[in-house]
Amino acid sequence: MKKAIFYHAGCPVCVEAEGMVAQAIDRSKYELEIVHFAQHPDRVVEAETAGVKSVPALLLDSQVFHINFGASMADVKGAA
Amino acid sequence: MKKAIFYHAGCPVCVEAEGMVAQAIDRSKYELEIVHFAQHPDRVVEAETAGVKSVPALLLDSQVFHINFGASMADVKGAA
Repeated sequence: MKKAIFYHAGCPVCVEAEGMVAQAIDRSKYELEIVHFAQHPDRVVEAETAGVKSVPALLLDSQVFHINFGASMADVKGAA
Repeated sequence: MKKAIFYHAGCPVCVEAEGMVAQAIDRSKYELEIVHFAQHPDRVVEAETAGVKSVPALLLDSQVFHINFGASMADVKGAA
């Protein structure tokens, strides 16, 4: 099973994208984890190391995809 | 079956995102169509009407998700 991680910060754009990812991703191939930075501020560093520059972002097999634009990681860190 | 349309223009960012979408989307729920604007310039208007502002973009059930940033639609039209 491949790993998919969806990082977000609870912003409206994030919530919309979360719905899309949760619905559309092939669960027979990917194990999906959803990480909300307000609940897991300790995972900001991990996300940045993986290349996440803004949220919402989807990490698939260590490849980062930024989906629309909700907030920058600087904003996320400011809020945390 | 729901409809998913991936719009792109052949840029490197587009190709990377196309691989992700093609791999990760749940084909048991979504019928995926891939539209390359260089091959189908007639579909630019349809995409813009749906809300596509840049490529690559994924349209899922009439909701637009811009994935990373390859090129603006203005660039796409300039190239077409």
